[in-house]
Amino acid sequence: MEPTTNIILELFVIFAAAKLAGEVFERIGQPAVIGELIVGVLIGPGLLGWVRPDMVVDTVAQMGVVVLLFMVGLETRPDELYCVGTDAVLVGVLGVALPFAAGWGYMALTGAPLSEQLFIATALVATSVGITARVLRDKGLIDTRAARIIIGAAVIDDILGMLILAIVGSFTAKGSAGFDWKEVALLAGMAVAFVVFLAVVAPRAIKRGAPSMAHLRTPNAPFAFAILLMLGLAALAEQIQLAGIVGAFLAGMALAELGDDWNLHDQMRPLYEWLVPYFFVVMGMHVNVALLMRPEVLIPGLILSVIAIVTKLAGGMLGALRGGWREALAIGYGMVPRGEVGLIVAAVGLARGIVEERYYSVAVLVVVVTTVIVPPLLPRLFAQAREGVKPETLVPLTPEGSAR
Amino acid sequence: MEPTTNIILELFVIFAAAKLAGEVFERIGQPAVIGELIVGVLIGPGLLGWVRPDMVVDTVAQMGVVVLLFMVGLETRPDELYCVGTDAVLVGVLGVALPFAAGWGYMALTGAPLSEQLFIATALVATSVGITARVLRDKGLIDTRAARIIIGAAVIDDILGMLILAIVGSFTAKGSAGFDWKEVALLAGMAVAFVVFLAVVAPRAIKRGAPSMAHLRTPNAPFAFAILLMLGLAALAEQIQLAGIVGAFLAGMALAELGDDWNLHDQMRPLYEWLVPYFFVVMGMHVNVALLMRPEVLIPGLILSVIAIVTKLAGGMLGALRGGWREALAIGYGMVPRGEVGLIVAAVGLARGIVEERYYSVAVLVVVVTTVIVPPLLPRLFAQAREGVKPETLVPLTPEGSAR
Repeated sequence: MEPTTNIILELFVIFAAAKLAGEVFERIGQPAVIGELIVGVLIGPGLLGWVRPDMVVDTVAQMGVVVLLFMVGLETRPDELYCVGTDAVLVGVLGVALPFAAGWGYMALTGAPLSEQLFIATALVATSVGITARVLRDKGLIDTRAARIIIGAAVIDDILGMLILAIVGSFTAKGSAGFDWKEVALLAGMAVAFVVFLAVVAPRAIKRGAPSMAHLRTPNAPFAFAILLMLGLAALAEQIQLAGIVGAFLAGMALAELGDDWNLHDQMRPLYEWLVPYFFVVMGMHVNVALLMRPEVLIPGLILSVIAIVTKLAGGMLGALRGGWREALAIGYGMVPRGEVGLIVAAVGLARGIVEERYYSVAVLVVVVTTVIVPPLLPRLFAQAREGVKPETLVPLTPEGSAR
Repeated sequence: MEPTTNIILELFVIFAAAKLAGEVFERIGQPAVIGELIVGVLIGPGLLGWVRPDMVVDTVAQMGVVVLLFMVGLETRPDELYCVGTDAVLVGVLGVALPFAAGWGYMALTGAPLSEQLFIATALVATSVGITARVLRDKGLIDTRAARIIIGAAVIDDILGMLILAIVGSFTAKGSAGFDWKEVALLAGMAVAFVVFLAVVAPRAIKRGAPSMAHLRTPNAPFAFAILLMLGLAALAEQIQLAGIVGAFLAGMALAELGDDWNLHDQMRPLYEWLVPYFFVVMGMHVNVALLMRPEVLIPGLILSVIAIVTKLAGGMLGALRGGWREALAIGYGMVPRGEVGLIVAAVGLARGIVEERYYSVAVLVVVVTTVIVPPLLPRLFAQAREGVKPETLVPLTPEGSAR
């Protein structure tokens, strides 16, 4: 081992900042996660420069977001997700189509090259379920029908976003012989197979294999198995170009029915409480305030943010109207945040020389705006939805949910 | 967030290897930690090269060893450590003096320059409590008097090792005006003040302040406080040139009496089970087998390993004879592993051009040998000690200990 003096110090500074900001924001009636994002901007290289994003903090942030989505998966029983399947598909598809079309339209008006138009439109597509899931978990709302629809739709969004990136990417690849149907079909097939296998086959297989866990000598083998499944499926999802968090979510869902027997909730909670705040602080650290304030970034960024918000909200609402407009509003609003997937798309475009530096910053601004506006209002919209819909469609707070 | 595809894959591969090796070694009646070390050598760059030590794995390894020592601290009530104070000081001091003297003697015979002689002798000094603590925790033996003496002595060793490094360092600094008494006195003062404050004042202060935790809005504030204390004191210990794990241990001890009220054991256990194996796999990954097998490394390495084992054993036994020779043997043997501190000393010497590359590898070999020989025998020696000593000095297995 080399002397690695700064790792622990970095972890301490970020966690202390996260907890301080969380406490302050809870006291002013806002979700802790907003405090974590803002304190990340504050201590990051854009402002104070106390901590820089490096492999140390990125590692812990990745662990955090994987644990977060695994935890959300654990709280999502597959049959509950099937119940909302149609709504989730509608919300997901409309929530992808409208932002893509509108984003493309706006970019066409700016006179950017076609390839850049398509890339920025793609960056507007995928919902970042991290923020919404965090707010809903912290407020004990993750067990509601609306939350299920959001999460199901976000998984679908991620698959669609990945496919659109593949299509746009092969359209716009420099010197490419045009569009590669085979690659896109292969990616689509793998993604769908992955999700269907994990959502349908895996939970049953795991349930059947669970008793043999008792033969292992490893102490607390079920917990070790859960961690292995979480990391393994997240890594596998990344290998087939899905977001790792989709794999982590599906791993959690595959274990949802065994969660109580194996005491997984209680064992994951300390991991959640330690690691998840890093993800949100680090997201804040990646924001360069000075750059975002320049007019050539600020103006298109704000216009595209409005487009991103309105179209996702409209798509989500249209897809979920069956449950009443109040619930549809909560769902549409919960779909608004764009996160790491949008940034990854923009970063790929930047790396290929298709997206200008300026429009990369625009994408960052869209992510920031769409992310920051959601947590303050979302619990209120969920509370209104609760009043508006039929009681049986809103599962009541579990004791575990309200304890968080 | 940049696309960081490989983080989760690396974490998966290491955890899977650790659990597989742990299971195999438990089945052949050996501690899981040995399997983790060996699988680390196997998958590391020295042999298969599946995973390389980088900031990702070093980060998680550091988190693991900090959690390990924090957990050991949580299980060590300060008053129990005071009871074994005299023995621990004797074991610590003798266990430093003998290896240093013998190591210096051997190096003088080899004809190495004085500065190199002193550096290698210093590298033999500090006990790495990580291995011993892990084996004793896994076997439910951490609550014994012998374990307390080992842990107390290891803290003392770490302080003494740090002081000797400061003294030797200022003796041998290139172009230095000789030995800097002031710096050494300052370091010694800070180290002693840090340890005494945390071991004596902090537990009472925390106990008095604990009820005010209820006023915080942060959910599960005591756990967040415990994590902050663990990271903060580990970082602070590193700032004053102690090992971070000493700070983590003292943080755990400061919270030991509140551990039950705050449910810290149960909450730390999942962190322990996920993160601690990384430390041992990564320790294995840093071993370059091909280099260690060269005769010019192998021969002095084995000689120095024997010296390191015999002198630490003798020092530990001499210091602990009051409790009977069987217990003294268990204690002396538990003190044998040298770990990251020895490597840090050698690395400092290498960086300053005082220690040859060859002797750096020799230090690595000493660490490997002294580390690997301990886990297989230690539980047996503890079992013998249990038969040999008066029953009241050996606390029986706790249910929690035996469950691990």
